[in-house]
Amino acid sequence: MFDWLDDAAARRADAGLVRTLTPRTTESERLDLAGNDYLGLARDKRVAGAAAAAALKWGAGATGSRLVTGSTEVHAELEYELARFCGAQAALVFSSGFTANLGAVTALTGRDAAIVTDAYIHASLIEGCRLSRADVAAVAHTSPDAVEHALATRRKQRALVVTDSVFSVDGDLAPLRELSAVCRRHSSALLVDDAHGLGVLGEGGRGAVHAAGLAGEPDVITTVTLSKSLGAQGGAVLGPRRVIKHLVDTARSFIFDTALAPASAAAALAALRALRDEPELAERVRGRASELSARLADAGFAVSVPEGAVVSVRAPGPNEAAAWAADCAERGVRVGCFRPPSVPDGVSRLRLTARADLSDSDVDRAVAVVTETAPPDARR
Amino acid sequence: MFDWLDDAAARRADAGLVRTLTPRTTESERLDLAGNDYLGLARDKRVAGAAAAAALKWGAGATGSRLVTGSTEVHAELEYELARFCGAQAALVFSSGFTANLGAVTALTGRDAAIVTDAYIHASLIEGCRLSRADVAAVAHTSPDAVEHALATRRKQRALVVTDSVFSVDGDLAPLRELSAVCRRHSSALLVDDAHGLGVLGEGGRGAVHAAGLAGEPDVITTVTLSKSLGAQGGAVLGPRRVIKHLVDTARSFIFDTALAPASAAAALAALRALRDEPELAERVRGRASELSARLADAGFAVSVPEGAVVSVRAPGPNEAAAWAADCAERGVRVGCFRPPSVPDGVSRLRLTARADLSDSDVDRAVAVVTETAPPDARR
Ligand SMILES: Cc1ncc(COP(=O)(O)O)c(C=O)c1O
Ligand SMILES: Cc1ncc(COP(=O)(O)O)c(C=O)c1O
Repeated sequence: MFDWLDDAAARRADAGLVRTLTPRTTESERLDLAGNDYLGLARDKRVAGAAAAAALKWGAGATGSRLVTGSTEVHAELEYELARFCGAQAALVFSSGFTANLGAVTALTGRDAAIVTDAYIHASLIEGCRLSRADVAAVAHTSPDAVEHALATRRKQRALVVTDSVFSVDGDLAPLRELSAVCRRHSSALLVDDAHGLGVLGEGGRGAVHAAGLAGEPDVITTVTLSKSLGAQGGAVLGPRRVIKHLVDTARSFIFDTALAPASAAAALAALRALRDEPELAERVRGRASELSARLADAGFAVSVPEGAVVSVRAPGPNEAAAWAADCAERGVRVGCFRPPSVPDGVSRLRLTARADLSDSDVDRAVAVVTETAPPDARR
Repeated sequence: MFDWLDDAAARRADAGLVRTLTPRTTESERLDLAGNDYLGLARDKRVAGAAAAAALKWGAGATGSRLVTGSTEVHAELEYELARFCGAQAALVFSSGFTANLGAVTALTGRDAAIVTDAYIHASLIEGCRLSRADVAAVAHTSPDAVEHALATRRKQRALVVTDSVFSVDGDLAPLRELSAVCRRHSSALLVDDAHGLGVLGEGGRGAVHAAGLAGEPDVITTVTLSKSLGAQGGAVLGPRRVIKHLVDTARSFIFDTALAPASAAAALAALRALRDEPELAERVRGRASELSARLADAGFAVSVPEGAVVSVRAPGPNEAAAWAADCAERGVRVGCFRPPSVPDGVSRLRLTARADLSDSDVDRAVAVVTETAPPDARR
């Protein structure tokens, strides 16, 4: 029955695209520049402690959908504080950023709507677009003109423009203000996935939408994840109250999914409070990312200029990228490796993520290891 | 921009289909017959304690995708023990049952495949079918003949038959053995969502697939959730090793999603071990469901004969069902209420879920309250 899987596996092996799961231990001495725990909060005592306390208080699971038994006081508090922090009218917590994106895109569009997306949006948004049955146009990366053209020539009256704020591969920024202006000229709503912006960009980490002055606008929806800067699991949609109500009634990935575990909701809430108490965390991670980028550029690599926490370093090809990342890991520094098909432009790269809690010597070590393990033709 | 939402909201209000989120407190005195914590393990000390310990040991979140930094020893142990327990070659843990279903259905089909589904499958499987771009035929409920006809007349060579084991609304059972025979006659694989079977059906709660003698078969895939009998959050796909490898390399809801929080994985593992140590838990929840059903039938209601933990009671209409459930809640018994569009046949009902830890007096109280609050025309 599944013999075709062996052929598919052989093709992936030929293309160097086989992936392996390597469970980590707690004893790892590796410097982690691959994860998305941008503020170093996942293992913060306040955050992990809140998760533990919530598991003991509420139980390990939510026991049902948010609409049946799955909504606890912790979910409600998290929604209230997240909305306030980001400057939105209301928020709705999902079990993941992935399901939040599915829910927001599908519930706000449909057969009678047009969607215009940046070509480099996250996979979960792409899945949402596919599920939506809307007319979908994916246009040139970070191009308000391309978006404007697609909106002007759309066949459906209702429209939604969809973009990441900080793109996950290169860490570059969407032109949110320009996109919002284009949307308004063409009576379209704007949905921004701020997964990599929350906790990193904007005043005290309020995110890229807040930084662009778009928080609380009646025609802007933001999605976030609780699994990156907030060090937990889960996702949320932020926006006008009527949008949130609409999602409660109609978003299938909300209605037909068990609620986020109380421990994860409590951890995200504790992380949000930690960020509120230490607004400098956001600045610190951006500073570390700039340092990493500048020093790797000085060393001769083709490096992205980071808007947030993500720094990408161009590799000569997919095999070189994989070998480079493996060599870094062997030397004690874990970096990400992005190759086709996970990169929208076919260019392989190392992906380094800064953390607010990196020390000077961590940065020194990272730069040294990446430099010393570089393949000969990795320099510009 | 979002004025259309107000019209949609008004239409839902007219139809009596507005939903509200009511956060629960820990002090609730209510008897819960609405959640899916079938074995009462979510608040078991071993399970909640394992969640708390894992949060403190590993941190509140997994920090990245399973393929980057998100796989811990806990995830690996859970996959190993879950596969062994259910009799499958291998298992892969996802962040939810919802994303597990999306990943399994999409990665195993595609444009060049046909999918034949039972008409009453869970929403997450339906979303997976929509995303797959396969030819999809939804056929009559629990009808191997209808499946056979659809397979015989399909236009694509590769085929996947998709069904729930225990259907979530009425708790009735799919004819798994017959479906498997049909699949074999027509060279199709079979995917069974055992979300409501794991922990409830089969020897020691090994699930409906195990009970049907199909565990470990080379052409059968099982999906489960960690959020019901196992009292945690998350989902998993079980099947032949080559299928699991294929999912690691290709399932987008696996690759592009942050891994399940270590606390939830550890809780599910502890629950699995509790179930292994107390195989009678599965029998106990089935016994409680049978009791509830028999006594409500004696009282004159149109009740489903439960195969697992779910008992459904027919209501005269959607408004009567909602009022009935609300009256039960007021009298201290929380029951589920399923109305269109969440029911595949348009019939509204109360949905009661049994738990292994219900006492005799809990059952007495439930039957008394449901009976005393029944609308006049609820009896057959
Ligand atoms: C831009 C973006 N959106 C959404 C997600 C999905 O969030 P989650 O991992 O919490 O499901 C991710 C990361 O996984 C992401 O990078
Ligand atoms: C049959 C079935 N499959 C899948 C799911 C989804 O699982 P989860 O809630 O863990 O995402 C559910 C319940 O929510 C279900 O009832």
